[in-house]
Amino acid sequence: MVIDAKSPIGVFDSGVGGLTVLRSLEKLLPNENFIYYGDTARVPYGNKSDSTVLTYAFEDALFLLRKGAKLLVVACNSATSVAFGDLQTYFKIPVIGVINPGAKAAVKASKGGGIGVLGTAATIRSNAYQKAISALNPELSVKAVSCPLFVPLAEEGLENDELSILAAKKYLEPIVNSSIDTLVLGCTHYPLLAEVIGKVAGSSVTLVDSADTAAAEVKSVLSTSRLLNPSSQKGEFSFYLSDFQEHFLSIGERILGRKLQVTRVTNCSTDF
Amino acid sequence: MVIDAKSPIGVFDSGVGGLTVLRSLEKLLPNENFIYYGDTARVPYGNKSDSTVLTYAFEDALFLLRKGAKLLVVACNSATSVAFGDLQTYFKIPVIGVINPGAKAAVKASKGGGIGVLGTAATIRSNAYQKAISALNPELSVKAVSCPLFVPLAEEGLENDELSILAAKKYLEPIVNSSIDTLVLGCTHYPLLAEVIGKVAGSSVTLVDSADTAAAEVKSVLSTSRLLNPSSQKGEFSFYLSDFQEHFLSIGERILGRKLQVTRVTNCSTDF
Repeated sequence: MVIDAKSPIGVFDSGVGGLTVLRSLEKLLPNENFIYYGDTARVPYGNKSDSTVLTYAFEDALFLLRKGAKLLVVACNSATSVAFGDLQTYFKIPVIGVINPGAKAAVKASKGGGIGVLGTAATIRSNAYQKAISALNPELSVKAVSCPLFVPLAEEGLENDELSILAAKKYLEPIVNSSIDTLVLGCTHYPLLAEVIGKVAGSSVTLVDSADTAAAEVKSVLSTSRLLNPSSQKGEFSFYLSDFQEHFLSIGERILGRKLQVTRVTNCSTDF
Repeated sequence: MVIDAKSPIGVFDSGVGGLTVLRSLEKLLPNENFIYYGDTARVPYGNKSDSTVLTYAFEDALFLLRKGAKLLVVACNSATSVAFGDLQTYFKIPVIGVINPGAKAAVKASKGGGIGVLGTAATIRSNAYQKAISALNPELSVKAVSCPLFVPLAEEGLENDELSILAAKKYLEPIVNSSIDTLVLGCTHYPLLAEVIGKVAGSSVTLVDSADTAAAEVKSVLSTSRLLNPSSQKGEFSFYLSDFQEHFLSIGERILGRKLQVTRVTNCSTDF
């Protein structure tokens, strides 16, 4: 298989969350082709062990490699926090995660008043955000909180439900009572809950996520590698899911603003 | 491999919920040996498609068969509602699900005032409870509600959290305002939330689950098949999980009232 500038960008997540990153990629790189893989048969990742998340991340990545991806976007914070280093080490094509872009966006937004990070259990346990922020500015204080119910709430489309408000109040309590001026949505599902999280955090707190910064990094890496698609036509999209789920379509169509066609991939995502 | 009365009973679930059934089995059949398999790497099942749940149920069952199980308990309502018929058709050893026992318990408890059923999306979509209750007593009215957040709430150990109270209020609203006298906890995780569900349902509603009735059916089938373990010693237990999770241990130890030792099984539960 020949990998060249016309090859697609591969993007994966445990479910629908990665589409929030795909939306930014599409906006910044309208002439690129994209393959999206959502591991909906094994969602969520964030409450599983590092070893399991690592296995899943490699299976997801291999699926996209076998589909001819020229660059891999790990559009899942849990997978990035556990597997990013190994994916970069083992694979030849460029790999972009979402933790470093999220940390960059947070450091840029913060006026020095402290940064809060919301993430899954796997992401928070890894300390990946704390390390990435500290590498950019060791003087910024970071408070990280694991929010295990946010992914099920987002996957169920309950972003405006009072359950999401109560969950946000519960998770944000230890953060908003301390001094933070910036809050990282450290899971690609959380932008779906941004309105509720923003209300609970209060207007003095700036919410940031990885999507736009990750997209900018993808563009920069493609440019440096001479892999930007030279086409002037709108790119093509393929969506693959390990389990077919109606709510992926309804939430996905709301995120991307158009109808989606998905292909079901069976056998734990290894059916090439 | 020889299957005889001394062989273990195999019990599986997507996670920790099936332990509520194991607890009843242990009480009624103290001299039996048990193997428990929790597919924690792919939990939850109830929000996935029938086709995926069917695949998982067969993989879980095969794991237990390869471990020498003499009888299979599908201690998961989602798996029972989708896969029970096929498991019974294909495998030689007896297979006991949790839907028929739950329906039996509900019909026994009801004084004719209507039965509510709480379950996962997969269970409610299948109409399995409605059919099973109707087969026992076609005159009983059944109102079924899908409660997708109850499994994550139970798996996170939030059974006394205000999030569980709010979720119970939300899910039970269409039921408690209608006339029911019995409420089926139609998912083996839900007994973990029984206190909260009971409070919201009110004292005039009797909560039932499948555990005791399923255990009685297991005893009856073993007796008929001459497979009851003749030992007078306390049986042995093995616990296998597809993902190692601390909270499985903490919740599991609370359910069974003793320390658990678990073995991690890799490769999507097919690593025999």
